[in-house]
Amino acid sequence: MTDTQITIGKVKTVFSTSEPDKVLIQYEDKVTAGNGRKVDFPEGKGKVCMEISEFLFKKIEEAGIKTHYLDTFPERIMSCKKVDIIPIEVVVRNVAAGSIVRQTTLEEGKKLNNPLVEFYLKDDEKDDPLLTVDRIILMGYGNDIRALSFHAKAVNAILKGIFQDIGLTLIDFKLEFGYDVDKNLLLADELSPDGMRLWKKGTKERFDKDLFRKDEGDIVEAYKYILTQLKKI
Amino acid sequence: MTDTQITIGKVKTVFSTSEPDKVLIQYEDKVTAGNGRKVDFPEGKGKVCMEISEFLFKKIEEAGIKTHYLDTFPERIMSCKKVDIIPIEVVVRNVAAGSIVRQTTLEEGKKLNNPLVEFYLKDDEKDDPLLTVDRIILMGYGNDIRALSFHAKAVNAILKGIFQDIGLTLIDFKLEFGYDVDKNLLLADELSPDGMRLWKKGTKERFDKDLFRKDEGDIVEAYKYILTQLKKI
Repeated sequence: MTDTQITIGKVKTVFSTSEPDKVLIQYEDKVTAGNGRKVDFPEGKGKVCMEISEFLFKKIEEAGIKTHYLDTFPERIMSCKKVDIIPIEVVVRNVAAGSIVRQTTLEEGKKLNNPLVEFYLKDDEKDDPLLTVDRIILMGYGNDIRALSFHAKAVNAILKGIFQDIGLTLIDFKLEFGYDVDKNLLLADELSPDGMRLWKKGTKERFDKDLFRKDEGDIVEAYKYILTQLKKI
Repeated sequence: MTDTQITIGKVKTVFSTSEPDKVLIQYEDKVTAGNGRKVDFPEGKGKVCMEISEFLFKKIEEAGIKTHYLDTFPERIMSCKKVDIIPIEVVVRNVAAGSIVRQTTLEEGKKLNNPLVEFYLKDDEKDDPLLTVDRIILMGYGNDIRALSFHAKAVNAILKGIFQDIGLTLIDFKLEFGYDVDKNLLLADELSPDGMRLWKKGTKERFDKDLFRKDEGDIVEAYKYILTQLKKI
């Protein structure tokens, strides 16, 4: 391979390829929380995250939403269309949990009547701060808000249904989007329980990265359970 | 006096009076920053903050906006209408500085084309987090947003003009509002350089609490300069 490493993320590494519109993304056996302050290297974690992502990207493509996903390879490598990432993380919330509970008067577990789409600046040094619409406009991304919000809600509808089918409630999740060389908006990054909250239906039993954040269980085991259930659909 | 202390704030103490619709607010010789993590007790600070507040509340009342201000007394005591404080702090920004610089890609000193009104949850334990409009609605304060925004912009126009007259640029400031017993929306809290950023025109020379936050000078001296200049208008 003549691939050149181009970006080292917290749990993924992106390599350029001989094709300028294509990258390889390697999912590492690594998990971080608190913006990298807590770290572990659980065996099998990269593979299961990649395979869940593959499954969900395919479902989302089938539903008509464009994603960066192309194919998967051994060694936890996913080939993807190269995108210019929009430095705004999009979070969709169906139930209050995590930062929205710490930063408002809403209590954990409060069901939101409508899915709430929120935006965060993708900037680890600044600790990914929450953005208001006015701040997004001031930073020059005002034109992206509508499309991001629309796509995020559509992805939410698809994912909610999939997880409901395997007995899990999709509490919230994070998405990243980017533009390909032809300026198409694509869903990018990964789609794994690292960037979601999933509770066993009717309970608060977690099947997501909160197990690691709160030292409440083995994430690889939980993620493998999810993958097995997804493959039964 | 048969006054009963009812609330101890970070730099002010509120006493109830024999009149149920009236309170006394004592301005302390105290300054805090970083949500109380940094503290000092500079002599004369309470008096100058009260007198600047008195001056500005009167100007705002003259312009037709209702405030809680009634009168001032010795010992740094201001009598005010009793209000139910809305637990949302309103910040108006004319120029980027402070948290908006830390939380976006905007650079300090960037002039905003239009005054930006922002909302923060008034909750020291949660560190006064930034709120989006959606979060305000979810917390049940959606009906207040329009009026708060309208009043904050009006106060901004008045204060900007006053400070311009004494050679200072109003960078940003924080307001609190409440409802009196008759459900009138009143501007409450204080109006001093403790809750504003004021830069000498054309420079970044500070005449506000940033002098204390950044250990760059004597706030009492700076605040007294402002009061002297205001009284010359």
